[in-house]
Parts: sequence; structure tokens; C-alpha cells
Amino acid sequence: MSTIKDVAAAANVSVATVSRVLNNNGYVNEDTRKRVVQAISKLNYIPNEVARSLFSKQSKTIALIVPDIKNPFFPEVARAIEDLMSSQEYTLILCNSDEKIEKEIMYLNAMKQKYVDGIIIVTSTLTPKHIEKSDIPIVALDRTISMDIPSVSVDNFEGGRQAVQYLKSIGCKKIAHIRGPHTIINADERFKGYIDEVKNESWFSDDLVVNGNHQVLETTKVTKELLMKHSDIDGIFAGNDYMAVGVLKAAEQLGIRIPEDLSVIGFDGIQLCQLTSPELTTMAQPIYELGYRAAELLLEMIEGKPISKLHYQFQVKLMNGQSTKVLGVTNDEK
Amino acid sequence: MSTIKDVAAAANVSVATVSRVLNNNGYVNEDTRKRVVQAISKLNYIPNEVARSLFSKQSKTIALIVPDIKNPFFPEVARAIEDLMSSQEYTLILCNSDEKIEKEIMYLNAMKQKYVDGIIIVTSTLTPKHIEKSDIPIVALDRTISMDIPSVSVDNFEGGRQAVQYLKSIGCKKIAHIRGPHTIINADERFKGYIDEVKNESWFSDDLVVNGNHQVLETTKVTKELLMKHSDIDGIFAGNDYMAVGVLKAAEQLGIRIPEDLSVIGFDGIQLCQLTSPELTTMAQPIYELGYRAAELLLEMIEGKPISKLHYQFQVKLMNGQSTKVLGVTNDEK
Repeated sequence: MSTIKDVAAAANVSVATVSRVLNNNGYVNEDTRKRVVQAISKLNYIPNEVARSLFSKQSKTIALIVPDIKNPFFPEVARAIEDLMSSQEYTLILCNSDEKIEKEIMYLNAMKQKYVDGIIIVTSTLTPKHIEKSDIPIVALDRTISMDIPSVSVDNFEGGRQAVQYLKSIGCKKIAHIRGPHTIINADERFKGYIDEVKNESWFSDDLVVNGNHQVLETTKVTKELLMKHSDIDGIFAGNDYMAVGVLKAAEQLGIRIPEDLSVIGFDGIQLCQLTSPELTTMAQPIYELGYRAAELLLEMIEGKPISKLHYQFQVKLMNGQSTKVLGVTNDEK
Repeated sequence: MSTIKDVAAAANVSVATVSRVLNNNGYVNEDTRKRVVQAISKLNYIPNEVARSLFSKQSKTIALIVPDIKNPFFPEVARAIEDLMSSQEYTLILCNSDEKIEKEIMYLNAMKQKYVDGIIIVTSTLTPKHIEKSDIPIVALDRTISMDIPSVSVDNFEGGRQAVQYLKSIGCKKIAHIRGPHTIINADERFKGYIDEVKNESWFSDDLVVNGNHQVLETTKVTKELLMKHSDIDGIFAGNDYMAVGVLKAAEQLGIRIPEDLSVIGFDGIQLCQLTSPELTTMAQPIYELGYRAAELLLEMIEGKPISKLHYQFQVKLMNGQSTKVLGVTNDEK
């Protein structure tokens, strides 16, 4: 590869002059300037990473668009992606969309302008039409967008079913569900998994489902109302770990013992589960693996390798904490 | 500003030809190529963001180097920085250094190669010598590096003192400290604040300080040992909120009631404090403001504005939870 010295020699000028032309600062005689530009062109001189982006349309940069990096699910995902990317000399741009479609579109356009090589996006609002306009490789993470857009996620429906099956298996007789926002597909899938398991139960009624909106305070409030109305609820499946914490708080405020009187199971498996008292039982996602696989898939696409599989769906796994009863142990033995 | 059409007209070729020259793909006759390059040069045509970086040495990109985005302090900081930067049409590159100097240096070099406009770094290991080599604006966040390098942080020494003063004010008679790693300057400052407040107390002895290494499990272990050795400890200042959670767990395992028997105060004010049971009393940093101010300071430096103040030091603020006694309420009234 040519160096700046080769360019200087070919144009018969000093290295400093080449530098002035490249950086567009300082006075350079117009003829000299032309000679330098021609030498650069003839030698295919690439001064740095940025110039490499210009000529190759590759920037060795990818972007991650998440709703909010403060949501503790996403830092772990971001870490996995950055781990793989930095080992391949890629850098990671971080974008927070707040689940707003206008921000997502703004970021997609901005990233294209910056010639990022690929994008990993967590979105509930973008449609394939928005994505197709972009000719950059894109992987949907956590939430699928369409059959045509590669994705990495977990089986939320099955995870929801398994959460309820587990509560039944430890003897729960009336199981409620705290669901997440209607706008988020994963929250809907988990809700559907719950419904599938309880719809034929004699005790089931629609008002056993309340919306905690993925918020702790909101969940504490609606769970207290729920438990005061249905004092015989002995199991709650919360649609994510945050809301499960809200359930713990509601129970504490009402003097309901966990797990003796009420078993609680969350979903996600964020680090928080080990920090609460009691520690949370949850349906854990392989969060780091999700991020890592999304990054691997994106790299394959960037490198133009054949993609054998468009959609990766991981299974969630029961992670036993202290918020669910132990089978065979009566309430007061525990 | 010139467009690709202006270039095509000036060189008397089609837009497609200009594009082929720019992207260095497809056949272009050598004379034509020269005409295009000369037209680009003459018109100062800037094809896109990447080319703009090449000519202006500005990429409208900044980098944030943190130890680990999974540490819940940093997502909030990253969010604040990205909020300001995206409003100014800058993008944010995220790097995880794991507190390793070789990774920090690798990232500094990589970011320079990518012509980032500035860097915000959280580091305990880099020295001014490493930074001076780089001619990119740099702001030290959370931990200062030297008098010459602009920084945004909190007064950890004073925060440590205030934590102990508060425990004294609510009647604690023997106060221990769980400190963080010796390699992290903030952990040291908080420890020194503790020492300053207790060194002249009759009850003080060196073995009231143990190292929790910023880990929950480690803290649970060393705190249990500490409390078994000194059963009269009635106040603990933990060097961060994570370690305060470890103290809660240790107390729970030993059957020690919080706050009736033991008052616990953390440091940082991460979201976790509101999610534990009991909720944590802590010396809260203005985390979002720290990130935002660091971003503002970096932008001022990038834009070449006069910097009126090199070092911003915020004060921490007591955030009352349920893990400390309430003055005037006896143990069993509460």
C-alpha cells in the first residue's frame, strides 16, 4: 500500500504539502494541489481509516439501536456485541430510540450517512418497509420484524407457558399475570403463553391479567389492587423481572409472605434477580449469547458470507430463586 | 455546497461515472478519472459524512471509554452523553476497557485512527503521559487523571465523610466501612473520608475496614465475618450501592435486622437502591448530570470555545431509604 511519502515523491512535493492538501488547510498553489490530487489518485493512496471508508464504503463500524441503554437488559447485550466487534477491529455506535419510530428512522439515516457496515436494532415499531429502504445489513434483536429480516430472539410464547407450568407444578391453584405494554410484541407473546396455559382452568377469569407497563411503581400499584380483589391468588407470573420486583413490593406492603403465601416468577434473568430479597425465580434469557449471536450474524452478512439460517430463536430457562415455593416443603417447614 | 451533479457537469461526464471514481469500482478511463478528480478538488465537493471527516478531520463522532457498560452506573452516564450528542448530530462510540490499560490504549489509538472528535474516558490506570500523546480533546469522567486534563466527577472524600456523619447523627456508636478496590481512586477517596471521620473515635480500630472489591458476593462474605467478630457494629458505610446490597444479604443471613439493629448506607444512587427490600439509603451522585456536563465540556473543547473551568466537581446528596434508622424513633416503634 502506498504511503504519504510515495505520494510526495510522485508529486515532487514535501510530505507537509501532501498533508496540507489532504487536510485542506494552509496555502497550497493550485498547480501543486492538482499534482498531489493526481498522485493520490494514481497511487490509490489511502491516508487512514476514514479515507478507507470513503473508497471501500466500509467503516469497520456498526450501530446498535436500543430503546434505552438504562434498561438493564441492554447493557449486557451491548457488552456482548462490543466484545465480538472489538475483537474483529470494529467499533460500536450506540443509539437510544426511546421506542419512538421517528428516532429510529433518524438513526437509520444518520448511520447510513456515516457508512456504518451494519446495524443491530431492537424495535417494536419499524416495519419491513422502513428497513428495505436501507441497503445496509440489519439484524433484529430481541424482537422480530419480519420473515425477511434476520433476527435473534427467544421463544417468548413458550417461555410464558413454561412459567405458568412451573407455578402449577409447585401447587399454585390460582395464577395471575402482570403483563407488559401492548405495543411490545414480546410482552404480547408472553401474555399469550400465559393464556394458553390457563384458558381452560375453572378458576380463570380475564381480570387475573393486569398491565404493569414494565414499570416497578405501576406494577406495585396494580398488583396491590389485584391481590386485594382476589385474595386467593397464590401464583403470579410477571412479564419481566422489573415487574416481578413490583410484585414483591406489593406483597410486602400487604403483609403477604413470599413464597409461603404467594409464588412469584419473573422473565429475563437480569442481574437484579440475585440482588432482591427474596431472590427472584425467573425465566432467564441467555442475554449475553443473544447479543453475541446477533453480532456474529451481522458480521457474516457484512462479509457477504452465505447465511444458513435467518432466524435464531433461543429457549429461556428456569432460574430458581427464593420467590417460589419448593415442592414437597409445606409452608411452615421452609 | 457542490453536489455530485456539479462535479459531473464540470468534468463533462455522467453522475454514474463520478460515483464510480468516488467508490473506486467499475472501469473508468484514466483521463476521465483525472478530470473527475480535478473537478472534485476544484469544487471542493464533499460526497458524504465520511469524506467530510477526511477533509475536515471532523467525524461528528465521539467515543466513551468505560470499564464495563454492565456496571449500572455507566448506562445512565452513557444515556446522558448520547442524549446531548445526538441533539447536536454527533454519534457515540461505546468502548469497554475492563479497567485494563492495554485495552484503554488500544481504544485511544483506534479512536484516533477513526478521527473521532473527542473522547470521554473513565480510567484509573491511564496517566497524563498516555493522554498527551493523543491530540484529541479528552474529558476524564468519574475519576480525575491530572490537573491538566479536564474532568467531571463528585467529591468522593466529602461524600464519604457525610455518610459517616449521617450514621453518627442517627445514633450509630460503632461504624464499619466496606471499601472498594485499592486500584480505584474513588474507592480510596471514600475510604479516606470514612477514616477522617472515625480516626479519633475511641471505638475505632483498623479491622473495622474490610474490602468488598465492589462485588456483592465478596461483600456478603467479608461482612458476615466482620459482623461475627464485632457484634456491636451498628452502622456500616458501604463504598458503593452494590456492596451495600451485599451487606443487606449478610445481615439477613445472620438474622440481623435492618435498620433496627444495623443501619446501612451506600454510595452512588443507582436505580437498584429503590428495588431492594429494605430500600437503600445512599449518598447519591447526580449521575445523569455528570454525563451531560462531561458531554457539554467535550463539545466546548471540540468547538474550540474558551474553557472557563477545567474541573467540575459535584456534591453527592443523602437519599433516604429504609436501611437506616430514623432519629427519634426507637427500634421497636418503627
